[in-house]
Amino acid sequence: MTDPGQLEVAGLCGSLRAASYNRSALQAAGQLMPAGMNLRVASFVEIPIYCADEQERAWPSAVLALGDAIAQADAVLICSPEYNFSVPGGLKNALDWLSRLPRQPFKGKPVAIMGAATGPVGTARMQYDLRRILQFLDAQVLLKPEIFIGNAKAKFDDEGKLVDETTLKFIGDQMTALERLIRREQAVNGAG
Amino acid sequence: MTDPGQLEVAGLCGSLRAASYNRSALQAAGQLMPAGMNLRVASFVEIPIYCADEQERAWPSAVLALGDAIAQADAVLICSPEYNFSVPGGLKNALDWLSRLPRQPFKGKPVAIMGAATGPVGTARMQYDLRRILQFLDAQVLLKPEIFIGNAKAKFDDEGKLVDETTLKFIGDQMTALERLIRREQAVNGAG
Amino acid sequence: MTDPGQLEVAGLCGSLRAASYNRSALQAAGQLMPAGMNLRVASFVEIPIYCADEQERAWPSAVLALGDAIAQADAVLICSPEYNFSVPGGLKNALDWLSRLPRQPFKGKPVAIMGAATGPVGTARMQYDLRRILQFLDAQVLLKPEIFIGNAKAKFDDEGKLVDETTLKFIGDQMTALERLIRREQAVNGAG
Amino acid sequence: MTDPGQLEVAGLCGSLRAASYNRSALQAAGQLMPAGMNLRVASFVEIPIYCADEQERAWPSAVLALGDAIAQADAVLICSPEYNFSVPGGLKNALDWLSRLPRQPFKGKPVAIMGAATGPVGTARMQYDLRRILQFLDAQVLLKPEIFIGNAKAKFDDEGKLVDETTLKFIGDQMTALERLIRREQAVNGAG
Repeated sequence: MTDPGQLEVAGLCGSLRAASYNRSALQAAGQLMPAGMNLRVASFVEIPIYCADEQERAWPSAVLALGDAIAQADAVLICSPEYNFSVPGGLKNALDWLSRLPRQPFKGKPVAIMGAATGPVGTARMQYDLRRILQFLDAQVLLKPEIFIGNAKAKFDDEGKLVDETTLKFIGDQMTALERLIRREQAVNGAG
Repeated sequence: MTDPGQLEVAGLCGSLRAASYNRSALQAAGQLMPAGMNLRVASFVEIPIYCADEQERAWPSAVLALGDAIAQADAVLICSPEYNFSVPGGLKNALDWLSRLPRQPFKGKPVAIMGAATGPVGTARMQYDLRRILQFLDAQVLLKPEIFIGNAKAKFDDEGKLVDETTLKFIGDQMTALERLIRREQAVNGAG
Repeated sequence: MTDPGQLEVAGLCGSLRAASYNRSALQAAGQLMPAGMNLRVASFVEIPIYCADEQERAWPSAVLALGDAIAQADAVLICSPEYNFSVPGGLKNALDWLSRLPRQPFKGKPVAIMGAATGPVGTARMQYDLRRILQFLDAQVLLKPEIFIGNAKAKFDDEGKLVDETTLKFIGDQMTALERLIRREQAVNGAG
Repeated sequence: MTDPGQLEVAGLCGSLRAASYNRSALQAAGQLMPAGMNLRVASFVEIPIYCADEQERAWPSAVLALGDAIAQADAVLICSPEYNFSVPGGLKNALDWLSRLPRQPFKGKPVAIMGAATGPVGTARMQYDLRRILQFLDAQVLLKPEIFIGNAKAKFDDEGKLVDETTLKFIGDQMTALERLIRREQAVNGAG
């Protein structure tokens, strides 16, 4: 929000694996963003398991840092695998902490969701749970296009780079739609 | 499973808070179990955020311990709050680790679910997500009675003890139904 | 949309029962709307079970009429019971027909959801399924306040009128929030 | 249940379209059933939209007939498209009627679910909603294998026949698993 012409997007990958398909898809999205829109990848790797008693003693610095990254961004892009038919526990745990912050960073924030999986359903179960969770947080979740990257093995090359043309096209479309949602929200809120 | 006449139930509380309503409800369930059925409370407090790279290096001992506790129990009872319209990240994260164990401990395991919340919906959103997750793990989730402890403040006393008679009656009914499910599964599997 | 100062809201009740709690709650909402906002109750009572072959032969007039009512309204208010843990089939069937209309009437339309039930969960399961369905239809579903009228018997009087003060307060708040959402959408779309 | 050696499966197609992919997949399942297991396709085509007032006046004969077909079968196989991210309204409406029958036909009944769709997600959203609905009805829903027939156009031939080998293999596996579930339930209930 520093340069009114630039749009900053905080990226969150639901997997902590270094060679994650979803991390790679997130990077592809960063490269497919419209001009003037930049991706900054954030992480929940240092965030401990949520405990209300610990919150009362002191907020973990990793929670405050991620909260600031989201609050300062114009939008959030979450790219996540599906674990056991739902949202990865680590990602959900980060959202549980963030939801308790006195100044809730997702409130009114445009959010886009993508997911890659080796199976055919392509993280659909994860995405609908995540949409409901973000509804509770008052986020402005982008409705469409939805991006389900199923059968991921066939769509990434040996270096783990996303190379499937159809998928890349959809991701570019989603980034354009996310830009439109950001501009729209800024217009409504008088920030644009 | 050591004493064929005794049934051991591993209890999991979805909240790490010491004074959690759900921890208290879990203890109430332990006291309302039929004769010969015992509750042993387990925990995910030491389990780190799931990372496939860490799994490849070495399984965390807390994961192995919880996996053993569940594998050796005749059933599992999960009592959890709802965080942000779904399963607490810490509980989901524990399930994500457990699901990767070579010998998956939830397979065919009878599981009962309860939840307490201060709001009116009483953890219903959490419970249906949890049922879907446990379906993926091939658990035998008890269908009914479902237990939604809404408006929890009015149902626990000042020491945090569950005192609402209707709720206690439902929990006793669920424990009886869980015993029946365990006996039934043992009969089918020739273990009884 | 005829009088720019007036806001028309098409109301849909998920139950066809004459003495339905939800019909009564819908009427209460109509009376609690801010000045200049009017409720017109529509219905799916004449809509047959969806069949693509029938659609190809001819659109049922009841579908066209409901589609027009929604297209011409500034917003939609759906008040529905929960049947078997989800959206009543009759309501879902109406949405299935409407979704096929060449000019899809829910696209961009502000929608608010309420529900009354005799049980404690107050239609929460129905509401989250309905939100996902309306997401597919590109509707602008109001995020909050959510209204779950649980234990309905205690909140309606002998004539079936909604008399619970807390619930009436929440409904009034939701109508105010709906008006704000309508004005906001009109501002964005240049229609206001 | 007339011949103890024969297993009768009532088949329900969620689409009323004559040339439905799901009707075709249902027929394929009938041919892939183990010896001694037979499919009888039932339908909800004559069932009106649910109305409690109509129920009080008289049960529609089509509801009673479908209820009998299910009550007398050893299992139910539902093969359905996904409409607007959930269960087709017509199918849900039939379940809404059936759930009110004094002798609820789904209670304890083994049920298997399949679905075909032209999109990539292959009816996953429909299937999880349907599982929750059937849980409420106390059905014994088969956990696995799940069958999501995505990108249906490529898997059916010009006459609408399911020809994809991988899919046919999965369907055969599901029918074998359904037979095992039926036998298991019969053993537990002393009916086998």
